[in-house]
Amino acid sequence: MANFARSGEMAFLKADKINSEIFSLTYGAMVAQIMKDYEDIEEVNRQLDRMGQNIGSRLIDELFAKTGIPVSSNFMETAEVIAKVGFKMFLGITANVVNPTPQQYSLTFRDNPMVDFVELPDNCANLRYCNLLCGVIRGALEQVQIKVECHFVRDMLRGDETNEIQVRFLEQVRESALDQSFA
Amino acid sequence: MANFARSGEMAFLKADKINSEIFSLTYGAMVAQIMKDYEDIEEVNRQLDRMGQNIGSRLIDELFAKTGIPVSSNFMETAEVIAKVGFKMFLGITANVVNPTPQQYSLTFRDNPMVDFVELPDNCANLRYCNLLCGVIRGALEQVQIKVECHFVRDMLRGDETNEIQVRFLEQVRESALDQSFA
Repeated sequence: MANFARSGEMAFLKADKINSEIFSLTYGAMVAQIMKDYEDIEEVNRQLDRMGQNIGSRLIDELFAKTGIPVSSNFMETAEVIAKVGFKMFLGITANVVNPTPQQYSLTFRDNPMVDFVELPDNCANLRYCNLLCGVIRGALEQVQIKVECHFVRDMLRGDETNEIQVRFLEQVRESALDQSFA
Repeated sequence: MANFARSGEMAFLKADKINSEIFSLTYGAMVAQIMKDYEDIEEVNRQLDRMGQNIGSRLIDELFAKTGIPVSSNFMETAEVIAKVGFKMFLGITANVVNPTPQQYSLTFRDNPMVDFVELPDNCANLRYCNLLCGVIRGALEQVQIKVECHFVRDMLRGDETNEIQVRFLEQVRESALDQSFA
């Protein structure tokens, strides 16, 4: 896949806001395009997650750069940072941390600018429309050496009363030997 | 192509802002996906334009709803509305109207939140990375019965000193007989 991203230090200095509807509609066009590409809806979900992973690995750099929050590799500490800082900074909403344990927590939220204008057609029953978000969280945590599994377990687009993303700890990844040699 | 959009009157009541970087990165992922789908770069450009057309036809409804600007089908009047109101509302930037004539005008702008983080690889020389914007303008004007051609003629991603979108008047479209019968 082509990669258009550069390191983007300059961009970090800006804090531009855009209207959420153009994002929502563009995201919708992207999901529609991916559905055209992959007939299997589970493959669509995986593809959205993969795309999110790349995005998350970049957004977390920006989060640290803009907020000055110290980098932490403690799984439980990441919950509040994602829910209150990450969601706020990038989507303009906050999430609640629910049922945190050392191995797992959930993030719940109701407002979601990604789904303005959106209604799932009947043939999309198994589509995890916002799965990009799971990938973003996964990709962001990977950057702080935390490997997680991340799934939507409730989804308002599918009739649930809230959105819930479950984040499950898998393992602490040691920094690569290369990184350590420059530490 | 699946269509996730509903009419969205509720969404019009909100004026949510999100961080431009998540939009920029998501848009980049979408362009990369389309490049994977279409080997011919001209087809990629067309596809981005087509996607934008759908988005524009929705955003213009929101623009009218939020600003109260009277609907105008006068081609020359649309230039300032797009440059100063539309760009501002949806991208947080303004454009300049350059060389307006009854048949054509250009919109120039330098800041562009769609290209934060972006650098075109060498094999993308003919890619009109932001062609979605041309489609948005085309789709929006179609909603007020103005048919235009819309092209990037200068592009900072390709080394130009500014971005310039040329908008050329094609024809005034009469409202359909159906619309008129309900007028």
